Amino acid sequence: MFEGLSKAKQKWIRSLHLKKKREQEQVYLVEGEKMVLEGLNLPDTEVQLIVVQKGFEDLIPPQFSPLTFTISEQDFPGISEFKTPNKLLAVFSRKTYEPIESGIILVLDGVQDPGNLGTIMRLADWFGIAQIICSNDTVDVYNSKVIQASMGAIFRIPVIYQDLLPFLQKSALPKYGAVLHGTNFKQEQYPENLLLIMGNEGNGIRPEILEIVDNPITIPRLGQAESLNVGTATSILIAEICFQK
Amino acid sequence: MFEGLSKAKQKWIRSLHLKKKREQEQVYLVEGEKMVLEGLNLPDTEVQLIVVQKGFEDLIPPQFSPLTFTISEQDFPGISEFKTPNKLLAVFSRKTYEPIESGIILVLDGVQDPGNLGTIMRLADWFGIAQIICSNDTVDVYNSKVIQASMGAIFRIPVIYQDLLPFLQKSALPKYGAVLHGTNFKQEQYPENLLLIMGNEGNGIRPEILEIVDNPITIPRLGQAESLNVGTATSILIAEICFQK
Repeated sequence: MFEGLSKAKQKWIRSLHLKKKREQEQVYLVEGEKMVLEGLNLPDTEVQLIVVQKGFEDLIPPQFSPLTFTISEQDFPGISEFKTPNKLLAVFSRKTYEPIESGIILVLDGVQDPGNLGTIMRLADWFGIAQIICSNDTVDVYNSKVIQASMGAIFRIPVIYQDLLPFLQKSALPKYGAVLHGTNFKQEQYPENLLLIMGNEGNGIRPEILEIVDNPITIPRLGQAESLNVGTATSILIAEICFQK
Repeated sequence: MFEGLSKAKQKWIRSLHLKKKREQEQVYLVEGEKMVLEGLNLPDTEVQLIVVQKGFEDLIPPQFSPLTFTISEQDFPGISEFKTPNKLLAVFSRKTYEPIESGIILVLDGVQDPGNLGTIMRLADWFGIAQIICSNDTVDVYNSKVIQASMGAIFRIPVIYQDLLPFLQKSALPKYGAVLHGTNFKQEQYPENLLLIMGNEGNGIRPEILEIVDNPITIPRLGQAESLNVGTATSILIAEICFQK
């Protein structure tokens, strides 16, 4: 039914495990039955190549047949970024996004953990966040762990990497930033259009960015934990901004 | 300075990687410099044994010398639950907690992912949550990944496993539960003492528990994600309950 995946294509897919190569080719890898099928069924995604494990060919919608190749269960781990690959893998083309100046724009200053970025994308997708702007040293959104944790948000949420300082200096939107000693986040009146800046897991927002934050906000601590996870803090702030009465 | 860790003790520690054995002995393992030292310095923790990697003996506060044994860098992975152990490992005694009927009590019905439970404990620790009640099929709070993700909350947040249905039937507290089609969480007036029930990652709260929820609440979806992560949802609801004006 489908051709087997050639050694050359296997090598190409393996090369895409590297951030640099994915960037050059302007693509990203998605793995697993659920997320690959979700991506294929969206109207505005472009898939370049699909790999299906032998025995699961029926999963492929017929219009994608020309782009689909098979691999044996034994060979699948050789191209996968996971220990136990799950039936499907696909190479999607990246989309290009331009920064916009309306809605809630989330800005990430040096978030390092792939699970945190994936969690943040997923909640951004729940709350209909307009865009995520990442500093250039934020973890790669096309990292396999980010994509996995994003639960499909990778297909929908525009993520743009920027040199943050000049980007923020140019933006006319009010700049809210999560800090340790700011205004109680419940006491702010949030406008419809704004930037919400979240910092690095260990160090928070870096000093030069902090200088141009107009509205430093804080989730007060009522217990004894040393800190809140950046995903947790982002979810609490976004929910308040979206649902404030 | 310290004795080397005997083969018998190495074997004992390895046996504690199993939930059943940890339970029999009423202990748990904590790893890593930061969290072990935090546990040692708390007034109400009881440590049974400390292992320090050779070369880092200075980390040990003198009063713990009699309980401390050394291990070589090469042998450390043999007793650790992590690929790259970090200097210290300790065996702590469990505490026994009794359910209470005041404050915000978080109830988890079948949460499976260790990272989610760890995240929930950490945010419970930030917000000063009184207790966490877990259904018996919730992931073990003494699982190494839960402890790691809890960031020290393991030492402070009382976690109690219960047969949930009879527990909830007996409790006089108002029962709030996170569901897909309930009242907007912003439109509720939360009392000072309550139970907040959060369900399993895939299936939510199970039907027989749902039947005794008095106040089903929902975080409305504004975007397109299929679901919210249980840690994310818990953080948003807890923050609202704690800070509602």
